[in-house]
Amino acid sequence: MILLLGGSGYVGSAYQQLFLKKQIPFRSISRADVNYYDRQQVVRLIRETRATFLINAAGYTGKPNVDACEIYKTECTLGNTVLPGVIMEACTEVGIPWGHVSSGCIYNGRRADGNGFTEQDTPNFSFRTNNCSFYSGTKALGEEILADAPQCYVWRLRIPFNHCNSSRNYLTKLMRYASLLEAENSISHLEEFVETTFACWEKKIPYGIYNLTNPGAITTHQVVQMILDEAKVRMNEGRENPFPAKKYHFFESEAQFMSIAAKTPRSNCVLDTTKLESFGLKMRSAETAIRDALKNWIH
Amino acid sequence: MILLLGGSGYVGSAYQQLFLKKQIPFRSISRADVNYYDRQQVVRLIRETRATFLINAAGYTGKPNVDACEIYKTECTLGNTVLPGVIMEACTEVGIPWGHVSSGCIYNGRRADGNGFTEQDTPNFSFRTNNCSFYSGTKALGEEILADAPQCYVWRLRIPFNHCNSSRNYLTKLMRYASLLEAENSISHLEEFVETTFACWEKKIPYGIYNLTNPGAITTHQVVQMILDEAKVRMNEGRENPFPAKKYHFFESEAQFMSIAAKTPRSNCVLDTTKLESFGLKMRSAETAIRDALKNWIH
Repeated sequence: MILLLGGSGYVGSAYQQLFLKKQIPFRSISRADVNYYDRQQVVRLIRETRATFLINAAGYTGKPNVDACEIYKTECTLGNTVLPGVIMEACTEVGIPWGHVSSGCIYNGRRADGNGFTEQDTPNFSFRTNNCSFYSGTKALGEEILADAPQCYVWRLRIPFNHCNSSRNYLTKLMRYASLLEAENSISHLEEFVETTFACWEKKIPYGIYNLTNPGAITTHQVVQMILDEAKVRMNEGRENPFPAKKYHFFESEAQFMSIAAKTPRSNCVLDTTKLESFGLKMRSAETAIRDALKNWIH
Repeated sequence: MILLLGGSGYVGSAYQQLFLKKQIPFRSISRADVNYYDRQQVVRLIRETRATFLINAAGYTGKPNVDACEIYKTECTLGNTVLPGVIMEACTEVGIPWGHVSSGCIYNGRRADGNGFTEQDTPNFSFRTNNCSFYSGTKALGEEILADAPQCYVWRLRIPFNHCNSSRNYLTKLMRYASLLEAENSISHLEEFVETTFACWEKKIPYGIYNLTNPGAITTHQVVQMILDEAKVRMNEGRENPFPAKKYHFFESEAQFMSIAAKTPRSNCVLDTTKLESFGLKMRSAETAIRDALKNWIH
């Protein structure tokens, strides 16, 4: 029996789908059912449901985007810093293991040696480096709070996407935004992310932090090219083209993006996934995962 | 009718004394009465009591000292960052003004020009400068959240003391600790602090941040000398000496203090109080306030 917090969100919904598909008993808990922030209520819930594992897919991401976190700082701190702490205390009290959906957005760029950031690298896009969005700051503090959690997976997601058109889908965003920012990123295929996080628990790999992105990195221009490629294939085959018939426009620079379109800086970063792979868990390459999502695109 | 949150704490108790003395109607709210973290409960409370002003003296300081905040990070974030945000939202919704007891511990040292830090100076002992205790980090984030509060006083307290022996009293701490750290600080006489904060509201000075310390700064050695001076006066007059008959021992350096006695760095800082004075509110000098507290010392 698995408890799922934040089950109605973009990531939480994918967990629900996974559990239904795998026929794994679970209970999705909303804030209306239980006050997540009250440790004793969470403890009672775990005991009553006899849950053997808990997944926290709840958090505050801001709508329509991360700029909203600059306004709703209290909710952002509550959802991303306090909530993982309360859940850690509750799970520790009852003695069950759990997993927390964290984010790779606590890094920016690549390591000085040109490689992606490993789980051992200290976040470089956080309050402590004073260059971050409020969102990234609260996410990094959340990881600080979990540093000593005894039986906890910290799963870092980055820019989720899949084949379903949705305002939360990275590919949809690229298709809808008036202008795009050129950047290099590691990204996470949503269903692969939830499957692989759950495999961490099923395979009983060691607790701790894991970067869960599709191996490799991809630039905005490369993704746009893949959209154009897929549109061309479909047109050549005489099939419907579900992708927008538009010319993709890019900001001249990050400075222009910041001055025109954003209130707070974005994290763009490359993560290293060898830790996950060392335990026999591997996601498809970023390019394969994107091409596949576009091939199966549902408008 | 004034609402007081955190009324049972060291600062909150002084507010209760002040209101009793001034015969001002107030209600002290404890966490058992109302869930502070639920905005709607705070809104209902303000409406039901028809409060015209609210004082937040609640926060998480750690017991026996700030090192505890390194362990209880969730509670610390909740009490010092989230709580002021929730109260701001509640007071803004109802439209009443309020005051928040903040802390000068978000600074360290003096300004580069040798002066004390003014309310315009950016905190230099915070997560963003990555040199702070978790406590100071959460306090500074709390002030960030209040930056746009429409009708809010942010009152910065530093190292409270008065004439009553208490584990929370700075003078008691100096008398009890086995070894002392030499440092220069601005400090706040507890009763003067609460009186002066309340005068901000009574005199309707502009909302915003105020450093509320006794003007000037004082070193640990100077305070110890004042204790020894007062002990000598009493002995010369044949009166009882309530101060410990001991030789005060000092750490050799801050490095020694950190390696032996502390888990997390302490803020030691000098604050500028001219903003407060420009509105006609003045506290006694640090030296006068300490000598007076020692003269009236109640063991």
